[in-house]
Amino acid sequence: MTKPVALVVGAGDALGGAIARRFAREGLTACLVRRNADKLAPLVAEIEAAGGTALPFGVDARREEQVTALVSGIEAGVGPIEAMVFNIGANVRFTITETTARVYYKVWEMACFAGFLAGRETARAMLARGRGTIIFTGATASVRGRAGFSAFAGAKHGLRALAQSMARELGPQGIHVAHTIIDGAIDTAFIRDNFPTVYATKEHDGILNPDHIADAYWSLHAQQRDAWTHELDLRPWSESW
Amino acid sequence: MTKPVALVVGAGDALGGAIARRFAREGLTACLVRRNADKLAPLVAEIEAAGGTALPFGVDARREEQVTALVSGIEAGVGPIEAMVFNIGANVRFTITETTARVYYKVWEMACFAGFLAGRETARAMLARGRGTIIFTGATASVRGRAGFSAFAGAKHGLRALAQSMARELGPQGIHVAHTIIDGAIDTAFIRDNFPTVYATKEHDGILNPDHIADAYWSLHAQQRDAWTHELDLRPWSESW
Amino acid sequence: MTKPVALVVGAGDALGGAIARRFAREGLTACLVRRNADKLAPLVAEIEAAGGTALPFGVDARREEQVTALVSGIEAGVGPIEAMVFNIGANVRFTITETTARVYYKVWEMACFAGFLAGRETARAMLARGRGTIIFTGATASVRGRAGFSAFAGAKHGLRALAQSMARELGPQGIHVAHTIIDGAIDTAFIRDNFPTVYATKEHDGILNPDHIADAYWSLHAQQRDAWTHELDLRPWSESW
Amino acid sequence: MTKPVALVVGAGDALGGAIARRFAREGLTACLVRRNADKLAPLVAEIEAAGGTALPFGVDARREEQVTALVSGIEAGVGPIEAMVFNIGANVRFTITETTARVYYKVWEMACFAGFLAGRETARAMLARGRGTIIFTGATASVRGRAGFSAFAGAKHGLRALAQSMARELGPQGIHVAHTIIDGAIDTAFIRDNFPTVYATKEHDGILNPDHIADAYWSLHAQQRDAWTHELDLRPWSESW
Repeated sequence: MTKPVALVVGAGDALGGAIARRFAREGLTACLVRRNADKLAPLVAEIEAAGGTALPFGVDARREEQVTALVSGIEAGVGPIEAMVFNIGANVRFTITETTARVYYKVWEMACFAGFLAGRETARAMLARGRGTIIFTGATASVRGRAGFSAFAGAKHGLRALAQSMARELGPQGIHVAHTIIDGAIDTAFIRDNFPTVYATKEHDGILNPDHIADAYWSLHAQQRDAWTHELDLRPWSESW
Repeated sequence: MTKPVALVVGAGDALGGAIARRFAREGLTACLVRRNADKLAPLVAEIEAAGGTALPFGVDARREEQVTALVSGIEAGVGPIEAMVFNIGANVRFTITETTARVYYKVWEMACFAGFLAGRETARAMLARGRGTIIFTGATASVRGRAGFSAFAGAKHGLRALAQSMARELGPQGIHVAHTIIDGAIDTAFIRDNFPTVYATKEHDGILNPDHIADAYWSLHAQQRDAWTHELDLRPWSESW
Repeated sequence: MTKPVALVVGAGDALGGAIARRFAREGLTACLVRRNADKLAPLVAEIEAAGGTALPFGVDARREEQVTALVSGIEAGVGPIEAMVFNIGANVRFTITETTARVYYKVWEMACFAGFLAGRETARAMLARGRGTIIFTGATASVRGRAGFSAFAGAKHGLRALAQSMARELGPQGIHVAHTIIDGAIDTAFIRDNFPTVYATKEHDGILNPDHIADAYWSLHAQQRDAWTHELDLRPWSESW
Repeated sequence: MTKPVALVVGAGDALGGAIARRFAREGLTACLVRRNADKLAPLVAEIEAAGGTALPFGVDARREEQVTALVSGIEAGVGPIEAMVFNIGANVRFTITETTARVYYKVWEMACFAGFLAGRETARAMLARGRGTIIFTGATASVRGRAGFSAFAGAKHGLRALAQSMARELGPQGIHVAHTIIDGAIDTAFIRDNFPTVYATKEHDGILNPDHIADAYWSLHAQQRDAWTHELDLRPWSESW
């Protein structure tokens, strides 16, 4: 019997990995997507060691034909996509005058346009069955512009508009579209290496544990359709906001 | 050994009852509050029949001395309040010119002022332990004014401001304060008797099942402190919003 | 011939005074309201010295019968109320546990309930003519709760809900209801005496000039009905937000 | 003596034209931008007939080098840009599955990316003088996603994030950045020809008069720097919202 699929677009970081592990633990086949599939080997191994199923896909999520092929390939050869999590970020900071057109475009392409492609293609597959969950990962910049964040906030606002538009359109067709607002540093190698002071707050739970975020994502997927959440925020208790 | 307490202020309707049952099922003593304690007997019986513990309290939540006595009495005689859910609504609809000063005041007193009293007293008890969860039940009117809703939206906006202010203040002291936005009709006798067309959508999950809302509330309480949600919305899949 | 009236509820501070002067300069009779009418004498004198017309009213805006009598008295004896500005604040700061029930209630009564009374009574008079402008003065706390601001943010959120509900209800009946968000210190004696560092920024326009806020209020009133603004924010260029 | 310049990017529709006329009437040289400069001749003639100064520029606002050349050319050869209004829209409606990647990209490129280019280049010039006004034209879709509006809402949300980020960054450097939310149909040939029922409401002011929107834009530009508005909405009195 075919297991349902959880497609994680942006499985390269700690959060993507945690989400994949969580959904795999619940019995879904985790289809993992990042640009370089080779780098997914440790995550695949970890999920399989825990008794789950995982498949790596090397895909540039900004390329329409690659995303289309990814989704149709999974649907045809792996199983029905029950959940899709779009998890690609592109957090950069530049003053407006130092923001090159190239940076502005690249950030949008990665953090918003790729979300549109993954969302649309997944929606197509789900609509045929009238069910499924699509979750977009947002940030504080999704709801608030800030000095230095013209590019990042622009892309994140766009992704949130996508999530909200899709939710209003696809909800009545049985697809649950949700958006999260992650407000705080996540426990990643990046934070550890670049922001040691922030990382030190981990000791008293001052940074987000990816596994706990993944729990929230699973809760969203597990909701009955009479009581769906569209948007939730997640932040450490000690975070100022 | 003393069991922790879940205090449900506004346990008289279907949602309050479902929340009480859910937290009792998880091992907390459900302290149930409504104006007339006698009417709580069936709910107490139901919780006890399911193996839980429940206690009824007849309290007018708009009276400071009663709320203060309620909280200190529970803390002294029942157990530490681990969770408090404020769940009193007062949904009325009048044009602005037909809204009497009495109605405007009463709606605020019930839906906002009582929330302040319950929130403050509970916070006091929780602060001594540096832990606990406080959840305020909101509605669409919490984030949006509308023709005919000057009184109700005013009270609900005020309650949301309370939740947000308390969350920012008490989060760093270990208290998790959350606010929900219930956007849609709940499966209650009131909807069944007064809005039969709405109620008929129950057949295909068009109205909110109180048990599913209660699941979401429990999820909020169960969150680890590195990843707390402050606000989440809940609505049926088919709801237009 | 009867001149139209601008009713300024809360004319006791610098902003109320500036608004009254501005509307009087445009030819409206400024009806000035504060609890103690005697204290309005200098403002009346100033407006009259500039060639305008002003009348002082000693009214407790929290008392329904006083507000009803005020509006009907002006309509009968002075002129048709073309504009009403509600301008009573009550900015206090207490931690949640230090917020007494009395403070919580008083702040709401002044900053929200009085706004409801003034708004409703004015709307009644304006609806008969199908025209008029009602402006409620808001603050940052109108859109954002914050540590220490449970009471103030609660009242201000409630006032904003009132403004939004009234706007949606009364707009199609010809009444322009607007809400402002004043985000920053205003040039008042209170700021000068209590926050000298803030006041010192006046030198480079770091605090709001009441006359410039009044200009914005007049602009709102002057808008044609095909292009009405419901909400606008005002803050100094140098303000961090 | 050199007259200051008002640069209107997107001068091809009724609103762009009205804004240009308004700023020209106040003594600024209106620099008009649309893809095909020839089509600007009637507007130039109209402004000149009214005693103003106007110059047409044929520029593809999505091309960085063209926008850079436009701004530096005006600064060098016409005068200092005191005000820039970005006014390019791209209102399209498609279900999510019918939204092609090309449409999604084109809408963003026109309504958001071009705004970034115009905003950044103008900011560069203004920063040297520490003064100037930048206004971005938004819509309901700037603050709310909706079925059928994934592309348009995405671009408009992105533009709003740009405006907010720039305002927070450039305000303290003397540049006034504002964002408007036009909520309703504007009196244009497009509405007249395609939505006759909507257009018929013009009779009782049911659609926005471009000249009145232009008045609001001028008011924003005229604000003193101690009391700047960042965001205002404009809608007809009869509009449901």
